[in-house]
Amino acid sequence: MRKLFLLLTILPLFVLSQSPNINKVKQYTASKQHEILRSYVELLSIPNIASDIKNIQKNADWIANYMRVKQIGNVQLLYPTTPNKPPVVYGEVITPGAKETIVFYAHYDGQPVDSSKWYSGLHPFKPVLFDNAYDKGGKPIEWPATGISFNPMWRIYGRGASDDKGGVMSIIEAYASIAALKLLPSVNIKFFFEGEEEAGSTHLEEVLNRYKSMLNSDMWVICDGPVHQSGKKQVVFGVRGDTHLELTVVGPKRPLHSGHYGNWVPNPAMELSKLLASMKDENGNVTIKGFYDDVVPLTASEKDALSKVPSVDEQMKNELGFRKSERPTSLNISLNVPSLNVNGIQSAGVGEKSANVIPIKAIASIDLRLVVGNDWKRQQDKVIAHIKSQGFYVTENDPTDDERMAYDKICKVVRSDGYNAQKTSLDNGFAKRISKAVAMTSGEDPILMPTLGGSLPLYVFEKILKTQPVTVPIANHDNNQHAENENIRLKNFFEGIEIFASIMMLPK
Amino acid sequence: MRKLFLLLTILPLFVLSQSPNINKVKQYTASKQHEILRSYVELLSIPNIASDIKNIQKNADWIANYMRVKQIGNVQLLYPTTPNKPPVVYGEVITPGAKETIVFYAHYDGQPVDSSKWYSGLHPFKPVLFDNAYDKGGKPIEWPATGISFNPMWRIYGRGASDDKGGVMSIIEAYASIAALKLLPSVNIKFFFEGEEEAGSTHLEEVLNRYKSMLNSDMWVICDGPVHQSGKKQVVFGVRGDTHLELTVVGPKRPLHSGHYGNWVPNPAMELSKLLASMKDENGNVTIKGFYDDVVPLTASEKDALSKVPSVDEQMKNELGFRKSERPTSLNISLNVPSLNVNGIQSAGVGEKSANVIPIKAIASIDLRLVVGNDWKRQQDKVIAHIKSQGFYVTENDPTDDERMAYDKICKVVRSDGYNAQKTSLDNGFAKRISKAVAMTSGEDPILMPTLGGSLPLYVFEKILKTQPVTVPIANHDNNQHAENENIRLKNFFEGIEIFASIMMLPK
Repeated sequence: MRKLFLLLTILPLFVLSQSPNINKVKQYTASKQHEILRSYVELLSIPNIASDIKNIQKNADWIANYMRVKQIGNVQLLYPTTPNKPPVVYGEVITPGAKETIVFYAHYDGQPVDSSKWYSGLHPFKPVLFDNAYDKGGKPIEWPATGISFNPMWRIYGRGASDDKGGVMSIIEAYASIAALKLLPSVNIKFFFEGEEEAGSTHLEEVLNRYKSMLNSDMWVICDGPVHQSGKKQVVFGVRGDTHLELTVVGPKRPLHSGHYGNWVPNPAMELSKLLASMKDENGNVTIKGFYDDVVPLTASEKDALSKVPSVDEQMKNELGFRKSERPTSLNISLNVPSLNVNGIQSAGVGEKSANVIPIKAIASIDLRLVVGNDWKRQQDKVIAHIKSQGFYVTENDPTDDERMAYDKICKVVRSDGYNAQKTSLDNGFAKRISKAVAMTSGEDPILMPTLGGSLPLYVFEKILKTQPVTVPIANHDNNQHAENENIRLKNFFEGIEIFASIMMLPK
Repeated sequence: MRKLFLLLTILPLFVLSQSPNINKVKQYTASKQHEILRSYVELLSIPNIASDIKNIQKNADWIANYMRVKQIGNVQLLYPTTPNKPPVVYGEVITPGAKETIVFYAHYDGQPVDSSKWYSGLHPFKPVLFDNAYDKGGKPIEWPATGISFNPMWRIYGRGASDDKGGVMSIIEAYASIAALKLLPSVNIKFFFEGEEEAGSTHLEEVLNRYKSMLNSDMWVICDGPVHQSGKKQVVFGVRGDTHLELTVVGPKRPLHSGHYGNWVPNPAMELSKLLASMKDENGNVTIKGFYDDVVPLTASEKDALSKVPSVDEQMKNELGFRKSERPTSLNISLNVPSLNVNGIQSAGVGEKSANVIPIKAIASIDLRLVVGNDWKRQQDKVIAHIKSQGFYVTENDPTDDERMAYDKICKVVRSDGYNAQKTSLDNGFAKRISKAVAMTSGEDPILMPTLGGSLPLYVFEKILKTQPVTVPIANHDNNQHAENENIRLKNFFEGIEIFASIMMLPK
């Protein structure tokens, strides 16, 4: 497996495809590499945290302007009814005679950043070109002179490079290539670029409701997430739902000297540890009562598709440096059950910031992924019931003095918003044609994946627009999405352009 | 109890003492409040983290200069043999005819700071005067005009205010008052102000060995730590030992999207939680094998003294806002056993810095307090053996790729230095005279405490100089020592001056 993977990564970027039109797109983007990547880096330089509304607006304006330059029609910013929230960047191309419409979705906002954690010389909003992944010996390199080609194994580091400005740009460049080559799309195309996906898509429903009539289509094609770890392209038919809880175990009102009070005053870091430890057994099973209830079993087609997905377990263990997975099942199977993950813990300081104290509080950020059948609020309820079962008084606020004196253990729990999982049937005919379009870019069938481990609020397309989505990811799997040192490999970016161009010229 | 405490805190600063000489000291320092506190604030403004050698030197120079101004003799900086380490500030006063010598010890370095955690408007090295504790409604106030008295309930906020520049200054001002009043000390006095106590006193032994001949004495009087929570003065006959371990549970080599990999790739935050949780039971007992072995039982005198210490359990629970202590025994008893405390935990981010990741590591800082009989290295060994018993491979370094693939769970453990506990007998005659001197400042017997919960490397005085120490703390118990918002109440600071002046005029 590992050998195969290595083999795939050294394939040249510009192999001949099975489709003459896609081959033209390949040649065209190869000739425009410098322009395309310069524009891309320009976009990556604009900070894109959803809560930073001023910069989010700059991103939206930049993208809208770029779409207009690329001859995309009816470009506009779609705002939710709630003021001061990120707009969706919308645009459309009407194809003469076409009866079918595809909406292409990507998002231009990114995960929160902690610049101090980025690798030396890297910064989330100062994109840099590397000759390989930094943790595989890659070094920063100068931008090549005009006329010199980019190596497809090079990477660009920056927040959003993969998740998901890479999606936004590859979709736009796909249409731009088709238009420049005077090829004809076979469907009407709508562009829909969201600006607060990483903040939970809280206002997506508002936008869909408000602009419902503009957003009619036969299918949504979502560009987000990575290609399969085997390097193969994939079409994904579902996503897990997602929600969060932030738990704060309450300690003494003021930080205390751990010598003068330690082991007598309760230590919130220890209490939080015990609480978290109580949530999973040694086999990675969540021990919270009813946690796996509600799950709708996999269909026969889904089981069949999963059996054909190449195993990447050994490859990923080697790559990530661990021997034993948390669950005994394979990665592919593990992603088809609801999960509970600790995203972060913080209590007082460690390392240079460690001091001899009993901390005043200990915080854990908990991520719950959901499968079809789960309801995000019900899943939160189960966790909260578990916290209570461990002897904690649960409150949504900082405890009052009376509450402090009334309960032995106190946990403040803040619920975030969330959304449920979504799945499109593997037997959906339109989705099958999209898979075919992806296959035509390289002559190889893509992996058909029943669900992505990650989450997107795709249920809303079903709910509001009565249209189903499929996801066609393009990023390299080792893109550090959601963390420091996010990057995209150029091969993946350019193949993404080909994939979306092929879908825009959808076969019958 | 709570009523009594309130009563004590509103006692005026300048009640008449039982000793006419101490009464003179009270009146003298009252008349010099402005000068004394201005100098004190000047000292507090110099950053004093032991590793910040440039500023540590500034502190030492300032103190040495101030001692010279106050007519203390033979002032010099005693450096350890290891270069670039904080010096001890030394000075002496030879009393004509005196046959006995007391060394007064305090330290001028402070605990590490995280300025961002300090209360709004406060900064560790920009001392501010408050009219009460900030968490009791206190507000910053202007420095009073010359001729206007300071209220004894006011506080000065700043790193080291209580721990332990307050000790340094009250000792110097005690001698300065005696000298200004032309009163005679009854003993020879030596001053010994350490500069890396909060960094583990790593070079104290070197200094004591190097300057052994200068440091002859009959007793060391240590000024560090707080007075009893009841507000009563205390003389403390021992300290717990202290050492630390930093545990890093190793996760995947790079941060991973918690949707795409969560619940399959092992989560180091969860593994660390389980590990910590395994170290204590629900009654606060450390479950590590042999943890309470080695403990030398309390003597009859110690048990008797402990039975006379006023209980502050209910007062402290009310003050700190919790109902149930970690151990079922009283605070006083709990401090006489070895302890294990989590000083801090960190794994990825929470709150605004939370992201949907599986963290690459999870770190806990562990504090071990020791009683007489414990050996600090042996105590570390017990914890490390426990970590192994929980299925972890333990290494002192970041794991190699081979190690990652050879073990299911990996914990990097970094041992800090440490030192053992020390106790002076409650029946020591010299110590009894010191207790008497403390009693003479207010006419009330101080609490005799067999051990402080906190730690100082007092064993070295026994080991190298064959001299025993007693500790006479002066700081208010709610001084936030070792944490953000450290402060000293002026009443405590000025009473400290009286206490040390009384000891310098030690009764027979």
